[in-house]
Order: sequence, then C-alpha cells, then structure tokens
Amino acid sequence: KVIWTLLVTILGYASSLPVGDDSLCTAEELAKYSIIFTGKWSQTAFPKQYPLYRPPAQWSSLLGVTHSSDYSMWKKNEYASNGVRDFAEKGEAWLLMKEIEEAGEKIQSVHGIFSAPAISSGTGQTSTELEVHSRHPLVSFVVRIVPSPDWFVGIDSLNLCEGDHWMEEVSVDLFPYDAGTDSGFTFSSPNFATIPQDTVTEITCSSPSHPANSFYYPKLKILPPIAQVTMVKLKKTHLGLPAPYLNLPAKSNEIIDSVS
Amino acid sequence: KVIWTLLVTILGYASSLPVGDDSLCTAEELAKYSIIFTGKWSQTAFPKQYPLYRPPAQWSSLLGVTHSSDYSMWKKNEYASNGVRDFAEKGEAWLLMKEIEEAGEKIQSVHGIFSAPAISSGTGQTSTELEVHSRHPLVSFVVRIVPSPDWFVGIDSLNLCEGDHWMEEVSVDLFPYDAGTDSGFTFSSPNFATIPQDTVTEITCSSPSHPANSFYYPKLKILPPIAQVTMVKLKKTHLGLPAPYLNLPAKSNEIIDSVS
Repeated sequence: KVIWTLLVTILGYASSLPVGDDSLCTAEELAKYSIIFTGKWSQTAFPKQYPLYRPPAQWSSLLGVTHSSDYSMWKKNEYASNGVRDFAEKGEAWLLMKEIEEAGEKIQSVHGIFSAPAISSGTGQTSTELEVHSRHPLVSFVVRIVPSPDWFVGIDSLNLCEGDHWMEEVSVDLFPYDAGTDSGFTFSSPNFATIPQDTVTEITCSSPSHPANSFYYPKLKILPPIAQVTMVKLKKTHLGLPAPYLNLPAKSNEIIDSVS
Repeated sequence: KVIWTLLVTILGYASSLPVGDDSLCTAEELAKYSIIFTGKWSQTAFPKQYPLYRPPAQWSSLLGVTHSSDYSMWKKNEYASNGVRDFAEKGEAWLLMKEIEEAGEKIQSVHGIFSAPAISSGTGQTSTELEVHSRHPLVSFVVRIVPSPDWFVGIDSLNLCEGDHWMEEVSVDLFPYDAGTDSGFTFSSPNFATIPQDTVTEITCSSPSHPANSFYYPKLKILPPIAQVTMVKLKKTHLGLPAPYLNLPAKSNEIIDSVS
C-alpha cells in the first residue's frame, strides 16, 4: 500500500510538470476574471515592414478556453491542430471551437470557451470575462496577427490557481509565434503552405535567421513585447449578480495611443 | 387611487410599445441561449462588386448585449452612437463596450455583454452563448460587413420572453444597414465622413437609389437575406454546469459551403 501511494504521488507529480499543475487546486470551486488584451504592435516599436494599408496592422478576435491539463490548445514545438491552423492563417474560429467542444465532451477537460472582439489597429485593447474551475484552472488563448502568414500571440495553459486560492492579478508579455503551417516570411507574404507542416515556433529578432523576416532585427537582443494580457480576479460579489458587465479600465485607449 | 393605477397602466403600456415589451416577463429569472450567426453573403446571391481581395468579403466579430427597454444599442431611423460608429466603420469594439458598460452601471439596463469570433468569409458561421434575465429579456447585436464604409447587420431589442416562458428557438433573417456616418457607396469606397451625421437606415435593392450602390439591384423586389441568426434555448440542466461549452451544429460549415 505504501508503494502504491508512492507511485501515485510520483505519477501525479510527473504528469503535472510539463504545464501548469492543476491537480492540487483546493481553491474555491469557481472564480471569474476579467481579461484585457493590449496590442503593442506600433510602428515605433516594430518599424520593419509595418503594415499600413489593406489591411493595416491589427488583431483578430481573441479565442480562449479554460481547461485542465488533459487539454492543450497549442504548444510550442508541437504541431498546431487544424483548428489552430485555420485561426492563425485566416482568423477563422469555427473549427477550433469545434475541437474545443469535442475535447470538452469526450474527456471533460474543458470548462468554457470565451472570446473578445477584434482590435482594428496594432495598438488598442479588447476585453471579456472568463470563468475557471478548480478542476479546470488553466487558461489558453490565441489572437491572430493581421496581416501575417500564420502568426499569432497567445498563452498556453496558464494556471490561475495557486494551491488554496486564486491569483488576484496576473500580467504576461506576449511575443509572436509561427503556427508552422504557412511558409510566408513577411506580414504580407502570399499564402504558401508549409509541407510537411512544421511545429509551432517562437519568432525572435534572430529566428528565422533571414533578413527578409519581418521580425528580423539583428541589432536587438530580444524583441519588445508585441502585446500584453492582464487577468484580474473579479470580486466574489460579482459572481451571479444580474449584471456581469465588463470592468473596462477608464481611458485606456488614450494611454495606449500616447505610447504609440 | 383608481386614476393613479390607470395612469401607471397607460404609461407602462405606452413606454413598452416602441420595442420588445419587457415589462410583463414572468418567466424564470434566467435563461441561456446559444446564438449562431450565419453569413449568407455569397457571390451568387450578391454578384455586384463582390469583394474578392484585400480584403475578401467577410464578417467582423459579433458584439451583443442583453438588456431592458431602457437601453438601446442601435435603432433604425435614429442616430448611431459613437461606439456603433466605430464598430460599423472599423470593427473597433472598445468604445461600444464602454457605452454598454456605462448604461449597465448608470441605469441598470444591461444584463451582460457577449461576443463571437469574426468569420473569414462571406458565408460561414460563428457562435457563442448569451444569458437573459426576466428584467433584461431583450437581445441586440451588431456585426460589421467587411469591407464596407459603415454597413452592418444586427438585431435591435428582440424580446426572448413570451409572457410566462422563454422562447425555445427563434431565427431572424438579416439585411444590411447603413450607420449613417460614412458616405461611401460601395464596399471598397474610401473613408468619407457624413457631415452632418445621418440616421441609421436600411439598405435595400432600390435605396440608396443610385446605380453605384453595391446593393442596387433594380430588377429585384427585395434583397435576399445577407445573413441569418438563430437563438436556441439551452436546456436548464445546462445552466451552472461545469462545462458551458458551445453546442455547435455538426458539419454546418460544409453545408454552408455547398450553398455558396
């Protein structure tokens, strides 16, 4: 019996290592967060080939999911699903929503889907609310970089549960990723399927190491963050209230505009 | 006392006439619906100036609100708010979300905001869930027509409550509206502000009565619907379940594709 307990402990530990550990969440069952996505894709910060026309630099809708470690929306160095490919290449969300729904039905690994409206410029904000569950405390989302071949920003399996409580607030800087499904090098490259498909890779100022790459800035050590996301826990009195409106920060657009 | 009661009755009746009557909803307090938006903007149905490139015909994110008759998101023959203008012209949702939030805080007329991801083609679907309340049984939403000067489709104050119960299912054909803020005549017209601003008007096959208008089809009596929305009440067991995923219809994209 001692050996069995030990084995379970080791397996539990090992399986929880790769992503956020959701097996030990003893916080209250449900928590709601407001999630605010801020685009920082300005011409000042990213002057190279900055898209000004047809279309100008902008962000797609945000599509996200709250889930357990049995589900993964996307992961660095792994192959993107067909749903993530459609979303990263075209901003088309339907197939990805179906994939999430199926994961929820088949293996009960999904708590809920959330989405936020697109942003019509490189700098700007969008926002929505999400709900996590103590058995589904992880948050993942994707936002397509528009225009681009198959580039996106996002979060993979961020755990909002810290043992016996939910995090009050968390902000994460976001950097561009390549979904590995389209071989375009620049924001406005024509479609050119990557065959065979490549894995999801982070795009840095030196990789892909080719001067034609839109994010190739050989003099920089690291790219500035192209976006940022902030999740703020909503007060418990907010839960179940008849008015779950958003808590948008005042004048945030003005603040962003002054930066760009 | 009789006169006072009569006056209240008359006022109550009169104020409820213009939009959905939400004063008499005695249904259960909360109901959830899945909402599915279907684009029917195909080149077959709308051959004139159908946008094929940069950008091709598509739909913005859907932004909606559940509310009482004290709030109006947009209304035919009235002036669009600045938030609706930003959304109809650019698909920029932030200001409209702020307006909705303020209406919710100031006059308690809003129950919740919902949004669904954009659709990357003229025909296709998107979906999300919404919640109505017996004191906030009305649904309004907007989806921008992309590309276009300031054209959108949507619903204004549809009442999902029928006396003592919630509607099981409702489908509505959608037709294009002009937000009255940009004077462009065609899908790809350059920006040209309408000064002074005009009211929101429906675009028909004969109005604006000018051959340059992208929807001017003098041989038609009415335009075919450019989109459709269906709301289906979710089973009560769905409420509060730990997995509020979407109930997307199977293979719907394939069905739509075969039509276009």
